[in-house]
Amino acid sequence: MRWTQYFITTLREVPADADVISQKLMMRAGMIRKVAAGIYTYLPLGLRSIQKLEAIVRDEMNRAGSVELLMPAIQPAELWMESQRWQKYGKELLRIKDRHDRDFVFGPTHEEVITDTVRDAVNSYRQLPVNLYQIQMKFRDEVRPRFGLMRGREFIMKDAYSFHSSTESLDKTYEAMRDAYTRVFHRCALDHVPVEADTGNIGGSASHEFMVLAQSGEDAVVSCPNCRYGANLEKATSKFFDDEPEPFVSEELLAIDTPGTQSIDDVGKFLNKPTSELVKTLVFDTENGPVMVLVRGDREGNEIKIKNYLGVNMLEMLSDAKFEDATGGPVGYCGPVGTKCKRVLADNSLKGRGNWVVGGNKKDTHLGGANVGRNFPEPEWGDFTTVFVGDPCPRCGHQLEIHRGIEVGHIFKLGTKYSDAMHCEYLDEKGERQPMIMGCYGLGIGRTVASAIEQSHDADGIIWPMPIAPFEVVVTSLGRDEAVMTAATDVYDKLRNAGIDVLFDDRDERPGVKFKDADLIGFPLRVAVGAKSLANGQIEWSWRKDKAKQLGAPEDVIPQIVDLVLAARVSL
Amino acid sequence: MRWTQYFITTLREVPADADVISQKLMMRAGMIRKVAAGIYTYLPLGLRSIQKLEAIVRDEMNRAGSVELLMPAIQPAELWMESQRWQKYGKELLRIKDRHDRDFVFGPTHEEVITDTVRDAVNSYRQLPVNLYQIQMKFRDEVRPRFGLMRGREFIMKDAYSFHSSTESLDKTYEAMRDAYTRVFHRCALDHVPVEADTGNIGGSASHEFMVLAQSGEDAVVSCPNCRYGANLEKATSKFFDDEPEPFVSEELLAIDTPGTQSIDDVGKFLNKPTSELVKTLVFDTENGPVMVLVRGDREGNEIKIKNYLGVNMLEMLSDAKFEDATGGPVGYCGPVGTKCKRVLADNSLKGRGNWVVGGNKKDTHLGGANVGRNFPEPEWGDFTTVFVGDPCPRCGHQLEIHRGIEVGHIFKLGTKYSDAMHCEYLDEKGERQPMIMGCYGLGIGRTVASAIEQSHDADGIIWPMPIAPFEVVVTSLGRDEAVMTAATDVYDKLRNAGIDVLFDDRDERPGVKFKDADLIGFPLRVAVGAKSLANGQIEWSWRKDKAKQLGAPEDVIPQIVDLVLAARVSL
Repeated sequence: MRWTQYFITTLREVPADADVISQKLMMRAGMIRKVAAGIYTYLPLGLRSIQKLEAIVRDEMNRAGSVELLMPAIQPAELWMESQRWQKYGKELLRIKDRHDRDFVFGPTHEEVITDTVRDAVNSYRQLPVNLYQIQMKFRDEVRPRFGLMRGREFIMKDAYSFHSSTESLDKTYEAMRDAYTRVFHRCALDHVPVEADTGNIGGSASHEFMVLAQSGEDAVVSCPNCRYGANLEKATSKFFDDEPEPFVSEELLAIDTPGTQSIDDVGKFLNKPTSELVKTLVFDTENGPVMVLVRGDREGNEIKIKNYLGVNMLEMLSDAKFEDATGGPVGYCGPVGTKCKRVLADNSLKGRGNWVVGGNKKDTHLGGANVGRNFPEPEWGDFTTVFVGDPCPRCGHQLEIHRGIEVGHIFKLGTKYSDAMHCEYLDEKGERQPMIMGCYGLGIGRTVASAIEQSHDADGIIWPMPIAPFEVVVTSLGRDEAVMTAATDVYDKLRNAGIDVLFDDRDERPGVKFKDADLIGFPLRVAVGAKSLANGQIEWSWRKDKAKQLGAPEDVIPQIVDLVLAARVSL
Repeated sequence: MRWTQYFITTLREVPADADVISQKLMMRAGMIRKVAAGIYTYLPLGLRSIQKLEAIVRDEMNRAGSVELLMPAIQPAELWMESQRWQKYGKELLRIKDRHDRDFVFGPTHEEVITDTVRDAVNSYRQLPVNLYQIQMKFRDEVRPRFGLMRGREFIMKDAYSFHSSTESLDKTYEAMRDAYTRVFHRCALDHVPVEADTGNIGGSASHEFMVLAQSGEDAVVSCPNCRYGANLEKATSKFFDDEPEPFVSEELLAIDTPGTQSIDDVGKFLNKPTSELVKTLVFDTENGPVMVLVRGDREGNEIKIKNYLGVNMLEMLSDAKFEDATGGPVGYCGPVGTKCKRVLADNSLKGRGNWVVGGNKKDTHLGGANVGRNFPEPEWGDFTTVFVGDPCPRCGHQLEIHRGIEVGHIFKLGTKYSDAMHCEYLDEKGERQPMIMGCYGLGIGRTVASAIEQSHDADGIIWPMPIAPFEVVVTSLGRDEAVMTAATDVYDKLRNAGIDVLFDDRDERPGVKFKDADLIGFPLRVAVGAKSLANGQIEWSWRKDKAKQLGAPEDVIPQIVDLVLAARVSL
């Protein structure tokens, strides 16, 4: 493709309303253009990267045995009423009335439509499993759309849904899809980790997120560099508290005056003890009443773990106004001894340990030597804390790392949530009706492309991984004199004929302008043809990532570039 | 692809609510599934045909110099207010409010968004022309969606828009796009004609429709088999009245008693004259008052031509209630002599001719020997009639044909309608601001696939043209015994390895079921492997279109099939 016959509109200015680097660079490089909040046009360069990713995704989905179809954006409300999501989904669901005043939604996801399709098409266990996917435009009416393609309202997603007659069959497909996702991100040359994730509102028994690592990521990802264990921070566990606690001799319960020491750090300093020897008491409000959670003083309570354990929808720190009524003591001095709280949870970090320092449920007072069983009833034990950097991996014991990441894929074992609600059933071997067991598998197309930029850019612009670069190589003519244009055209033609995806910057612009644009757009390789080096029979080339210039005769450089591109297409 | 690993759901029953054959067959063949009125899921087989067509369209658009982008479905109302279409577009425009109560539309077309994009990106004549296209999901809230993909609400369209600094540049791009469209339909092996069309509501100076010929087509298409002239019936002209009329001697005006002869045929019979010697008088109501139109008795008035000539929005036959008031005579006996109608048009078929028989504006009375100038004022002459089969071609004089057709593409020279309204301007060579001149080019993707079925099917099902068949070849194993399965698998593998798009019907079903399904879905070629012919070292193959069975050794048949597919990929 020749630049002058293409449609590229780079901007020198950083767009005022861009929040993150991928959005800024995609807008400046002329890859996307904002049409309304969270709604973008994919300009030609941007669409090329999107389509390259889509081709990789299709390839891996097909290889994993998923079959492509295409469901509509506009879906009848009746299906969403059947699944109860019409009632439960909030304002992110764009609800629409047609000219006959019938209710529809612009699909943010397609569980209802696919379940309706499969219940209609599949009757017998012999027809299962079924695994279907689509690449399609979705809409979520985000309250504050931002971050460009990272949190848009209209967005392209690959979503797949599988249907099974047994959990073993679901497990097999789930593994195949997990492998396919790993291959997709590997083939895009993205640094990524799959992590165990919370199943959240979607429900189901297991879930993995695929995180592209980038400092700007919204999520924290716990991973083990040794055994490839990965989990998001809400879900991650460690072996930190697995070792047998040392035996201890019970001390006497002792009230300690601790004036003005409301925080755990204050208490530690006042008593000259490390916070790891103290107990931190958290009190939450839930729809089933207040709950007390005890954790070791140097660890952090993990609200998602606590919420999942309790099976509640609402979990908030108990407000000061309700505090004394619920616990029997003032804020800052709360503890398990004599508390009015009916439900007390304690983190495994405290299990088997004793002689605790806890709040005394009385102003300016703590208690020392508090012991389970003697001073307060046995609490409910569990993992209620968040993993720290350096904690031992739950699988292999190696020190865990924590990185920032961007969620680009999410796969779920859904179970029978939708097939129960929508009567998506099959006849088993005995001729009995059974609900199908489902999995669902999402991959954000625009988000993945944006995450590649978050992961790989510099002050001058994007540095594309080869497999999803809008063009693999840019050939830049320096000056318009005939010898240069002839030589540059020849390089362009030879690369093109070798099957390389090449853009020829044939504009009548100063070299500085051309190089700036090429750096901004981020083509992985650049070949420059100018009069000066051409006089020595040479052309110049460089990688975008280091810009180190190399010279060589065209007959040497061209096959070298071809080899480099071919090698970089498959992997890092 | 193996059938048992794919997702094909054929139906024996004809769906109750299917109106046309393509819809019935696509639903029965498991290509589409209705989700709501005018809203479909493209099932895997259907999506394959859609994607094959999309690939052909992309190829030809790129070759014609159009550049692909992707605009959003959801568009802000502000843009539609700028173009005035927010106010003018009827209920087919799906209007949406987001969670913040802001107005949006689900785009039925993208003139506004593209014009906004280009006015932002292009400043100088040096950047023109620009030609951009997308393949994208659109929505038109049809009052009675029907005919499956032919008149759906949510539908896939290729739409392109071009921007120019001169009409010469627009003409050049328009020609390139017209050629590209012709190549697309030719490559799909569709029998089609491009026709001159009315520019209608979109306005602009020229327009062509691309019609796929099929007996079920909604439109009538006039075409010349000799010079390839084509026009839709509303627009077509002929040389029928171009010959110099014979001189005549004025007769006297004569009242004739014609009791009970309201129709032109009645009058002809009563007077024993061919209707070609009579004048038919049509009276229309318009927003500017009633208009009389005179045409030769054996021809039909053409409302589109009359409407375009008058430049009115409303044109209806004048109601009986208003008739006498407007014309001064009763229904059935209306004529130009002494009429109260202020405006009288006459078709060129009457020009230079005289001694007409016309209505007398009095019950049971006609007038003979009526002549222009003497008995009534000179009317406004023009082409106000519809072409008949056998009329001479306006270009070469050859007899015209009329066929039924399905409109699958429509291209327009738009002019400056949108660039004026939306201030899409460029600086010309003199530094002066000028509105860009626009063209737009639509091609219905789903409609084209459906039209292929309307054009090519039989009682058993679809007969796909090779280039857009969901699979090119089906290999059918007859029986499950090992030798058959081994041989069939071998045929399948060999065809696949030769790059043929082949489906292997490996199901454990009776041959009759398999053949019925294959005929219904309409794979162009079928290879059957059964024990009986295998015993003679042979396999069987046939074209779907004639089903004539041919036998041969696998080592002969396989390369033959490969050759047949490769030959059929490019053209008919």
